[in-house]
Amino acid sequence: MENTQDDVDFFGDKLIDKIRIIGNPLCVGLDPYLDKIPPLFRVGPMTPADPRTAKATRSFLMSLIDLLEHKIAIIKPQSAFFERMGWRGTQLLEEITSYAQGKGFLVLMDAKRGDIGSTAEAYAQSFLTKDAPIKSDALTVSPFLGLDTLEPYIQAARINGSGVFVLVKTSNPGSGDFQDLLVGEETLFEKIAQKLEPLSKNFESPRTGWSSLGIVVGATYPAQGENLRELLPHTPFLIPGYGAQGGGAEDAVRTFVKGPNGYEGGIVNSSRAILFPDKGNTYNPNEWETAISDAIEYAVDDLTEALARKC
Amino acid sequence: MENTQDDVDFFGDKLIDKIRIIGNPLCVGLDPYLDKIPPLFRVGPMTPADPRTAKATRSFLMSLIDLLEHKIAIIKPQSAFFERMGWRGTQLLEEITSYAQGKGFLVLMDAKRGDIGSTAEAYAQSFLTKDAPIKSDALTVSPFLGLDTLEPYIQAARINGSGVFVLVKTSNPGSGDFQDLLVGEETLFEKIAQKLEPLSKNFESPRTGWSSLGIVVGATYPAQGENLRELLPHTPFLIPGYGAQGGGAEDAVRTFVKGPNGYEGGIVNSSRAILFPDKGNTYNPNEWETAISDAIEYAVDDLTEALARKC
Repeated sequence: MENTQDDVDFFGDKLIDKIRIIGNPLCVGLDPYLDKIPPLFRVGPMTPADPRTAKATRSFLMSLIDLLEHKIAIIKPQSAFFERMGWRGTQLLEEITSYAQGKGFLVLMDAKRGDIGSTAEAYAQSFLTKDAPIKSDALTVSPFLGLDTLEPYIQAARINGSGVFVLVKTSNPGSGDFQDLLVGEETLFEKIAQKLEPLSKNFESPRTGWSSLGIVVGATYPAQGENLRELLPHTPFLIPGYGAQGGGAEDAVRTFVKGPNGYEGGIVNSSRAILFPDKGNTYNPNEWETAISDAIEYAVDDLTEALARKC
Repeated sequence: MENTQDDVDFFGDKLIDKIRIIGNPLCVGLDPYLDKIPPLFRVGPMTPADPRTAKATRSFLMSLIDLLEHKIAIIKPQSAFFERMGWRGTQLLEEITSYAQGKGFLVLMDAKRGDIGSTAEAYAQSFLTKDAPIKSDALTVSPFLGLDTLEPYIQAARINGSGVFVLVKTSNPGSGDFQDLLVGEETLFEKIAQKLEPLSKNFESPRTGWSSLGIVVGATYPAQGENLRELLPHTPFLIPGYGAQGGGAEDAVRTFVKGPNGYEGGIVNSSRAILFPDKGNTYNPNEWETAISDAIEYAVDDLTEALARKC
């Protein structure tokens, strides 16, 4: 397919533009752990099945999104935490996604979908097309089933100006079980990155040079991230594992490269450290807002300083 | 963890018991392709976003489930085709799952989830626990993120008498891109099977000997299936790719082993060939019922004869 999208914006451009304007690469993960939602927002026992739980979660997340406005470029809802609440959770995910987009955020849906051809098409239609019920700006997907199973997402992303982030080296302790296995001289995750290289290259925007096909590389594996950056110089990296999972700011921005306004090329995700700071566990709205704002400021400063030290 | 579940049934037992009683290993995949739903059930343009679409799909699937009653042991809804309809689709999936279980079917949810620890827990709570919104008897999951990410599903399955099917060798043409890569002397999918072996063994039922941890092996790769059976003698195999995807009955039951009532050890999935037979594309309810019943009978006979030829 030709890389011409005369009437469609590239997700790669939208992402990098927003980050340049905002001035930091922080992505906030919306992982509503029900037992951690502060007393201020809790209603009833907060069990997933209780209809009040989705409403309480809605008010928590919308208040949080309000506090994030103008401070970060992109949010990343974690689909599992919504699915757990059944159809009310799905309804909430639709609402939160559209609310955040209305406020100018990009929404990267973390659903890690992966299935064969016609089913992958149905997932693409769930998240990436113009009339998708949970219309997101980008989606995380798994490469395990093969390159043919990534095509439907890429096709949908091309037509609709959205993006795709493929799992390559994940942040969890056991990610090495299969991703690090040696295939000849290289690890499986490097092999995957090699196979993705032409797909990512073919989806680069002529304006900023950044691709709309990104990859996921845990902040917890910075050396592996550096290898991947060599293989994929124009591919946006989604970097989870910063903060609560133990990755430091220095490691989180290790794969960033020099751009016109400073180092760029990735988004660094933090979920629990922003959503559930210790002091946010309160009944008091002012205390809660201060705790969240402090947590955002801390992460933004932490990443901005780490980027400044690269210069 | 000890393999004692004094007050909980094993999914492995429930599966094999039901198949022995019913007498065939056919699993019908509920993949509601909206453009293929017959005129008899269509309402409006059948776009995913139209609220009437979920209702029309509901009446199609419930009528289908009625025709399947007492003919097969297990159905496999494909989550993507429901998610595409937004929260109404999720609501429908909840309803269909519970309707089918009420009629005595086991429900294997084909969602192919895969995510890190705490998120995998949320997915397990979406599908595998007693109070899950889409309470299924078993769930398909991806091993790509590592063994630690499979633990939450297995834990939930142990406590709740449910099952887990891990993707190993998928039925699609591109499944070889990564699954067939050579890691030393073995393919990646064999390595995955080796790592799953102790987990599956540890989840075997003392009564039938079958595990509640299964794997997915495409009917389109029968030789690979035979290798996997050697590695995993007591692991139920979910075998997609029979019928519309090109796998024949002989190949689909290649991995079955001799049991007390004949060959057993797997379920063979057919979706499109059962749901959308040519003659089912009609306005006439009698014609539709005949077409579906014929398609079920054809697949059941086809598999039963292939199994008889093994004896």
